[in-house]
Parts: sequence; C-alpha cells; structure tokens
Amino acid sequence: MAYDGTPYSGFQVQVGKPTVQAELEKAIERITRQATRVVAAGRTDSGVHAIGQVIHFRSDWTHHTADLERALNAVLPDTIAVAALERAEASFHARYSAKSRCYRYDILNTATRSPIQHRFALHRSKRLDADAMHTALQSLVGTHDFRAFAAGEDRDAVTVRDVTRVTCRRSGEMVRITVEANAFLRHMMRRIVGTALEIGEGRKRTEHMKDVLTSRDKAQAGPTIPAKGLFLVRVTYPGTPGFDTTNEDLLK
Amino acid sequence: MAYDGTPYSGFQVQVGKPTVQAELEKAIERITRQATRVVAAGRTDSGVHAIGQVIHFRSDWTHHTADLERALNAVLPDTIAVAALERAEASFHARYSAKSRCYRYDILNTATRSPIQHRFALHRSKRLDADAMHTALQSLVGTHDFRAFAAGEDRDAVTVRDVTRVTCRRSGEMVRITVEANAFLRHMMRRIVGTALEIGEGRKRTEHMKDVLTSRDKAQAGPTIPAKGLFLVRVTYPGTPGFDTTNEDLLK
Repeated sequence: MAYDGTPYSGFQVQVGKPTVQAELEKAIERITRQATRVVAAGRTDSGVHAIGQVIHFRSDWTHHTADLERALNAVLPDTIAVAALERAEASFHARYSAKSRCYRYDILNTATRSPIQHRFALHRSKRLDADAMHTALQSLVGTHDFRAFAAGEDRDAVTVRDVTRVTCRRSGEMVRITVEANAFLRHMMRRIVGTALEIGEGRKRTEHMKDVLTSRDKAQAGPTIPAKGLFLVRVTYPGTPGFDTTNEDLLK
Repeated sequence: MAYDGTPYSGFQVQVGKPTVQAELEKAIERITRQATRVVAAGRTDSGVHAIGQVIHFRSDWTHHTADLERALNAVLPDTIAVAALERAEASFHARYSAKSRCYRYDILNTATRSPIQHRFALHRSKRLDADAMHTALQSLVGTHDFRAFAAGEDRDAVTVRDVTRVTCRRSGEMVRITVEANAFLRHMMRRIVGTALEIGEGRKRTEHMKDVLTSRDKAQAGPTIPAKGLFLVRVTYPGTPGFDTTNEDLLK
C-alpha cells in the first residue's frame, strides 16, 4: 500500500491523532462490518511516506479480494491507497515475517525550493556531490552497531542491524539515497541522510561516515533531517525478490 | 514563479478566499513595506498549478533584486515560490506583453490511484492510447474558433485563438498533454483534455476532436475535467524562445 504521510502522525494508532492505521481500520470496518487490527511491516513515523508498505489484518470476508480492494480504495482518503490485496497464509505476519525493508530519501538540489515537490523532498540549494555521498555510504554495508544513528531516547535496546545495500544517485536535480536493511532503528535513515548531506556539501570528508559508525556515539552523527523526503519503498519476505532497482530510477 | 494550486481559489484576489495573488501581495508588502498590485500572465483557476507563471509588480526597492527574491521565498508559504526575479522595462506587462502561454495536463494511467501524485495528476485506470490522442489533438493546431471548448457561462466574447503546438506523450505510467496557444479560453485546456480522454479510452474515434472543434457546440466536447493535473508551464514574450520541449519530458 501507499500513502502521503504529510497529514498523519505516523502509521500507528495514537489517541486523538490522525494516523494511517486508524484510517485503514475505519475503512475496513466500514466495508466488512467487522472491527479488525491492522499490522504494518514498518511503523513509519509522523510525516514519512510509503509506496511499498505491507500490512495484514484478519477478516471473514468471503467475496473476491478484488472487490474488497476496490471498495477500500473508494472509501480511503486520497492520501492512502491499497495497491494490491490478497489472501495470506494464517502464519503470515506483515512485521515478523519480513526479512528486509527498503527506504529511500529524496533531496531536491535546486537553487530555489519547489512548491510542487515540497511534500515529498527535502530542498538543498548547495550543489551535492552524490558520488562522494555514495562512496561514504558504502561503509554502512554489513552487520554493524548503528547506535550512532539511533534516535536520542534510545528506544531500541539492541542497535545492531544488517545493512545489505546502500546507494546514492543523482537523477537531474534529484539526489536519492536508498538503504536496504533487515530492520531500521528509529530515526536511523534520517540521521544517515543527515550525515551524508554533511559529506555531500563538503563540510565533512568521505571517511566521516565510517568514523561516525565506528564511534557508536550519537553526538558524532549529522542532524535528524525532516521526514518529508522519506519513503518506505519495499518490504521483502522469504521467497520474494530483494532490493528493487526500478524504484531507484523512477521519481514517483 | 511556481505554485501548488491545491489550497488556493485560483490566482486572482477574491474577498475572503485564499489566492496566490493575495499571498504574493502580502509577502511583497511585508518585505518592501509598500503595498502593490501583482499582475500575472495567466489568471489560473482554482486548483490549477504553475511552474512557469510570470508576474509583474511596481516597487521602489533599491537593493539588489537577488535580496528581494530571497526574502520573498523566505516569507511565502511552502506552496508558492519565486524562481527568478528581475527588473523589467516600465513598459513590460506580464499579461499584455505575453505572446503565448503553454499549459500541460498530467494523467496518471495506473490500475490504482496514487497517494503521492494525487495533488498533481488526474488518475485514469483504463489504458490510454496516447498516440491516438496525439493524432486527434493535431486538428487543433492553427487559428480556430474554440467555442466548443469554452466554459459554459460564455465569459469569453471572442472565442478565436491561435494554437501553435499540441503534443500528447506517454512517459511510463504518465500521459502528458501539452498545448501552446496565444491565449486560452476559460476551461479550454480542461475541456480539450476531457475530449482527448474520450478518444484515448476508445469511447470516441480519432476524428471526434476535429468534429467537436468545427461544431463550435459546447455540448459536443468532453467533460471539464478536474484542475488538479493542470499546470501553467511557460509564458513566452517577444525575444524569448517558444515551446519548452524540456518540460515535456521532465515529470516535475
């Protein structure tokens, strides 16, 4: 499924706040007349978008799944859509069955900010050296303790993660960073991008990324940049193909 | 200049409604401490976007224009930006000096609607024949009475316009119609696209576009489709180059 995260306080239900989960549960209940709990592969933070989120829910729906999919898209807000709906094995769990997640971050690198892109890309006017960023980011590949890139409050007790692939590529005025890992720490992607930007703008050397990683010190990483350019692009399950290269080039 | 037209009741000032002109005049007065009237090349309707709008205003600003441009972009909302600001001849008039306008309309042609594109493209799930649409649209090129494509209320007394170029091209899942003309009737672009869609979806034959044009009968044209996919792309003045081919391919 996909969503524009701008109007939502993240995926997960919070009392009194608009969330993607609440909208989905409301729509499912309206169509199936059955209350249910929606579980997502990635509990995206406030303002984070998705084009490849995966969810599961239990339902006694006996008609075609295509009918449920169509009905859900008819009642969901413009900012949320279900791209494909199918029956799963009872053992399938959107979060626990996932073997990896892929996030991307888009940076619009133009002299003036763009009103057309403002919901979906961070704007940076200084010319970014995407090649230097790409080189620096390669030091993250592998099994490492990513504590330096974790959120301030230390929500994640275990901070070791497996990063399987990282790219930074320029496509015209857009610079896109894509990271695939078994799982992400809270704010990890936004702090990795914040650190990469320091390198891309020439304020830090290429080696800085590796130094931050090995320091395991949160004070060494760059700032947690805004959620607006961040997308959950793909979730991979056993038996499905991995890193989706098509998403790197399509500026959707 | 550019704007996301979604939150505005069009360009032109209307009492009690948010408009692009009102936001611009407020920003200019705040920076220059001088009230002024902004004139635009194209008075876009409610919900219509722009990436190449041209405006003029009078000001006694004596500092660098680059400083005014920067200051305006700092105070304007995220949905409006000035791309370039320069001093003009006293005789320059954004609307009356313009020799042509170029609008484009974007249609996302995918099975499911996209929450990421929903502000900037119309969604159509049925596969569109962009080549047939392109062929049909060629009958509009030239000096014609476009009365059939005018808005219902006949706001435009003279309905003859010079269309200099029309294209319809597919780029992956996006179908883009671009029209350049000396000037546009109210709703003309949206009714041309509505008619082209009937051809692209196979509900009308290619010849239908020419039949509608020569009928000069508003009842023959397709529906006025929503403003959300419509962009003012470029305004051309004597001495500046015409139809901007780069905008056809860049899905900005």
